[in-house]
Amino acid sequence: MLIKNIRYIVTMDPQRRLIKDGAIFIEDNKIIDVGKNEIYKKYKTDDVIDAKGMVAMPGLIKAHTHSPMTLMRGYIDDLPLIEWLQKLWTFEAKLKPEDCYYGSLLACLEMISFGITTFSDMYLYPNEILKAVEKSGLRAMVSPLIFEKINKDCNLRNARKFLKKKTERVTPALGPHATYTCSKEELIGVANLAEEKDVFIHTHVSETQNEVKQIKEKYGTNPVEFLNSVGLLTDKTILVHAIWVTDKEIKLIAKTGAKIVHCPIANMKLASGVAPVHKMKNITVSIGSDGPSSNNNLDMFEEMKAAALIHKINNLDPTLIPSNYALEMATINGAKTLGLNDTGSLEPGKKADLILIDFRKPHLTPLYNPVSHLVYSCNGGDVDTTICNGEILMKNRKFVLDAGKIMKKVEEIKEDLLKR
Amino acid sequence: MLIKNIRYIVTMDPQRRLIKDGAIFIEDNKIIDVGKNEIYKKYKTDDVIDAKGMVAMPGLIKAHTHSPMTLMRGYIDDLPLIEWLQKLWTFEAKLKPEDCYYGSLLACLEMISFGITTFSDMYLYPNEILKAVEKSGLRAMVSPLIFEKINKDCNLRNARKFLKKKTERVTPALGPHATYTCSKEELIGVANLAEEKDVFIHTHVSETQNEVKQIKEKYGTNPVEFLNSVGLLTDKTILVHAIWVTDKEIKLIAKTGAKIVHCPIANMKLASGVAPVHKMKNITVSIGSDGPSSNNNLDMFEEMKAAALIHKINNLDPTLIPSNYALEMATINGAKTLGLNDTGSLEPGKKADLILIDFRKPHLTPLYNPVSHLVYSCNGGDVDTTICNGEILMKNRKFVLDAGKIMKKVEEIKEDLLKR
Repeated sequence: MLIKNIRYIVTMDPQRRLIKDGAIFIEDNKIIDVGKNEIYKKYKTDDVIDAKGMVAMPGLIKAHTHSPMTLMRGYIDDLPLIEWLQKLWTFEAKLKPEDCYYGSLLACLEMISFGITTFSDMYLYPNEILKAVEKSGLRAMVSPLIFEKINKDCNLRNARKFLKKKTERVTPALGPHATYTCSKEELIGVANLAEEKDVFIHTHVSETQNEVKQIKEKYGTNPVEFLNSVGLLTDKTILVHAIWVTDKEIKLIAKTGAKIVHCPIANMKLASGVAPVHKMKNITVSIGSDGPSSNNNLDMFEEMKAAALIHKINNLDPTLIPSNYALEMATINGAKTLGLNDTGSLEPGKKADLILIDFRKPHLTPLYNPVSHLVYSCNGGDVDTTICNGEILMKNRKFVLDAGKIMKKVEEIKEDLLKR
Repeated sequence: MLIKNIRYIVTMDPQRRLIKDGAIFIEDNKIIDVGKNEIYKKYKTDDVIDAKGMVAMPGLIKAHTHSPMTLMRGYIDDLPLIEWLQKLWTFEAKLKPEDCYYGSLLACLEMISFGITTFSDMYLYPNEILKAVEKSGLRAMVSPLIFEKINKDCNLRNARKFLKKKTERVTPALGPHATYTCSKEELIGVANLAEEKDVFIHTHVSETQNEVKQIKEKYGTNPVEFLNSVGLLTDKTILVHAIWVTDKEIKLIAKTGAKIVHCPIANMKLASGVAPVHKMKNITVSIGSDGPSSNNNLDMFEEMKAAALIHKINNLDPTLIPSNYALEMATINGAKTLGLNDTGSLEPGKKADLILIDFRKPHLTPLYNPVSHLVYSCNGGDVDTTICNGEILMKNRKFVLDAGKIMKKVEEIKEDLLKR
């Protein structure tokens, strides 16, 4: 596939970030060439996309979500945390595997519409999520939730089985929910299994002040230090939220090479707190959205803008998290976080995961700096074309999947859930 | 015009907020009827819009912007305030009247694309802005900037002349820039002129801590108290930002009936501070975006979401600024702020300013509560149809204006400005 006449390529390759008037050549699922438009003459193919007026960039990488929670999108907002959680748990208790398949498939559809090509998921019924990812054409890391005392099926034995299910586009990992919901023995079991199978660990940490208080009372240490004490802090550990972390914990994370996923909108909506991202030097920080019940969409453009804004206002410093860094968090840092180092930038040899954004719009005019527009002016609806693993999943905003059918099915599931 | 088969009408009429399966009948520039879908049988017309799958709501009202600043969109970001202002002023000094006409017209186009039907502007060359508004079909309050010591043409005499230019859709007002940029005599002159002509006053106040310090040093009072002392605090005063206001000043604003415009995204991007909106009981608070150089778009959906989020996180209270209130700020409160009481809600007798939003999208599925989706899930690109004063300005996202021509012209102006 040849994509030519691209207005700007935002490569996220540190060697040459921007290419004005560019072209990209793809063969099978790989990027073969990225350069000035003239390179198109080298390649003979009938499979050509004319990207006039468009900006090309790597597919966005959402490093944390709970995709089936689209089923609760807009069901509960603006409530005190305890009340919100109780309503959520009551609703979740009704979920069947098929519900999660369709909820996840709807999330995949939404992510395709917003230019996300890779996401990292952690939820109930991981086999259903895997099935939805396979159907959608996206790339994902899928982590079965582990917290046996809360849900007996979310145990280490089932997680171990799931690790065997690796596919070309799906990487299984382990998803211990958090230090306050897993037992110490369970967390040690996760650490051992992760080492044995050489897989990633995906966990929530230090999301609320109350959680930190609980762990301190129970174990006498802060949550990140506790994770370290049970062998769960390695360069394959993905820590989600990391809001109420001390400077000492930040150093510990940097030292071990663990990664952090920042979820600015969900953290604002649930009033959890603001992660000290500006202090997280020498740590790979990427962006997630959390579940669509605490956001309420999966748009990474909104999330990048929120990440760029919240640290400025929280520290009264307009220079923090500049647009370049926000874009890195949402692309190349996402790839590093998930260990998918052949994604996250547009470079020859990398996987063909890329998107085209139509800049011929009033809110993207005039154009001084494409990176500024991507972070501060775009929304997910500006994505015209989404390509993952060399396959077109959306073009001219038309999906390959039958979107109408999936949306109808999810509305039916919602009606049924309300009656259960 | 008859709009039928509407999935939900979000009326913003406090008497009956939501109508499921509705229809709206419009004659000339007025709403005649709003009700259940069956009402369509009463009206004979060939001018019918089938709004299947859509949500109808009042056109959004942006209560503060500087529309020609689209010309500087993405030109400068992430800089210390002083450096940012210096670059901005250097750029602004090059602007000619025609530049501002096209900059403002581009802003109108963007606002139409995002479902805004009324905006309030304050900038240089108000005659050019008026011309752009007239051309666009939108409704606006236009305030000539007044700060003679900074720009000699921005004086009271010119402002007085501009007040005569009222049209069907344009309401002139007075735009004294701020307490630190206007002289005391100038502000007294504005107060007298506003009283004489019975017009609104549109001014920035207490945006930065430094501004408050300056006014305290110069006049011995806080900015809002100072405005009151020169007769500038009335029920026709529109105060923009109001970030660093004391509880005493909030009480004073409530007592005088002055209005407040909250600009959450610009306040975050410039790291100005967070206005204590949750304390502003008994005050009409609406939403603005400030200029597109400090935002960088004019999307009111982003702005509503930001307003709903920032107070939650800033006060660690997830119940603050619920979605209903964010939507009120962006519609009916905007109308009250600008004294345009025949807009801001869908009620018989009001002006036909309304939008249709296509909810047949993955990120707006499933649907429990349309208000939640409007605030937490939508973006401006979801607006399908924009109608102002009974005229269709966009339908199926196709503009009536020649968008390509306007965008091309603005790109040319940008290129020229970079060479001047």
